Amino acid sequence: MLGALFFDVFGTLVDWRTSVARESERMLAPLGYNLDWLAFASAWRSRYQPAMEKVRSGARGFVKLDVLHRENLQEICGGFGLQDVADHVLDELAWNAWRRLDAWPDVAEGLRLLREKVLIAPVSNGNISLMAAVARHNGLSWDAVLGAEIACDFKPNPAVYDAACASFDLPPERCAMVAAHTGDLVAAAARGLKTIHVSRPDEHGPGKGESKPLASVDLSVGNLIELARVLPS
Amino acid sequence: MLGALFFDVFGTLVDWRTSVARESERMLAPLGYNLDWLAFASAWRSRYQPAMEKVRSGARGFVKLDVLHRENLQEICGGFGLQDVADHVLDELAWNAWRRLDAWPDVAEGLRLLREKVLIAPVSNGNISLMAAVARHNGLSWDAVLGAEIACDFKPNPAVYDAACASFDLPPERCAMVAAHTGDLVAAAARGLKTIHVSRPDEHGPGKGESKPLASVDLSVGNLIELARVLPS
Repeated sequence: MLGALFFDVFGTLVDWRTSVARESERMLAPLGYNLDWLAFASAWRSRYQPAMEKVRSGARGFVKLDVLHRENLQEICGGFGLQDVADHVLDELAWNAWRRLDAWPDVAEGLRLLREKVLIAPVSNGNISLMAAVARHNGLSWDAVLGAEIACDFKPNPAVYDAACASFDLPPERCAMVAAHTGDLVAAAARGLKTIHVSRPDEHGPGKGESKPLASVDLSVGNLIELARVLPS
Repeated sequence: MLGALFFDVFGTLVDWRTSVARESERMLAPLGYNLDWLAFASAWRSRYQPAMEKVRSGARGFVKLDVLHRENLQEICGGFGLQDVADHVLDELAWNAWRRLDAWPDVAEGLRLLREKVLIAPVSNGNISLMAAVARHNGLSWDAVLGAEIACDFKPNPAVYDAACASFDLPPERCAMVAAHTGDLVAAAARGLKTIHVSRPDEHGPGKGESKPLASVDLSVGNLIELARVLPS
């Protein structure tokens, strides 16, 4: 019987693209900047995997995702004409934009229902304070915050999945990874976890997300309320 | 301004003594055992500090408190005529007794009110799965579960307080340790945290707990609802 569900967060639970665009505009438009905010959000996010890869490969020691978000912002500023924005403004933007992420409409209710059945925790590449802020922003309640900072490594490296199971004292076969990204699920399955794909067709823009898993998974659902309905108690 | 409150759990939030006594009786009485269950709970708890001290001193690597609870139970069994109880029964007792701990009457409401003002997390020597279970048993909601397992060390060693502040990305002066034990607070203060004493006069039996702090603290309250009333927003 399943004992815990582990959730990917960026893309699976929250719509980072429109949220980061909105927060960036909210902060920079009053300073006179006018740009394609959705393109800006996507460009910022595009630095996410390469930045983590340096840590995953061992070329760099573990740092929190907040640090990478700030560095990645610095790298894209020039391309969007933001090279003259003050450091303290960029500090604040990098901190807040990735905390004020709106959940997809099914998430708050879906997690509430799922928590009546099993332990639930984010197993994200985001750090603990970031996860706590996203939870507060959306009224989510977790049993614990697990993920990258617990393992000092980033998904899809095995240590992150292993550490999450160990934190709940559950064997991997009693844990399921829930994500809208097939790569995350394939990596979790390789560590013995069950896998649940959630359709998020609009993650990268309308129709530009994973509406279906791209590999075999244990379960595939349209949203978390559906998952709560079909998950055995 | 305060950003987070860190809570000691055993004794400060939950009445371990009567809860462990009750759970032990519930499990062992049907097997024909009849003993002074409160004395048994106190004897079990008396092994707590010496067991952790081996880890704190470096004589032993970090292990979860669940492991120490099980070992400590083994050590006291003979003295209570429980030497013939099967291992799997003792496994279950050690696991469940310290998860089914009842909170003091003010805790659920007090934490709910406090969470409207600041981040809240247990900073206990208990491990993550144990803390998650105690929270569920009492309907508590945390922003994150911090404490010994995050730091791989036990309080009052400095690493536990330092790791808790770092997890929330807060300087220690914006964090307060809340405990019914002066020693915990003195150690937190040494790391720069604020200190709040909660009166728990009956922790070790009627009148046998700390009703007042035994050293200087930043704030001393009777219970968590009072703390929620006096804590600046």
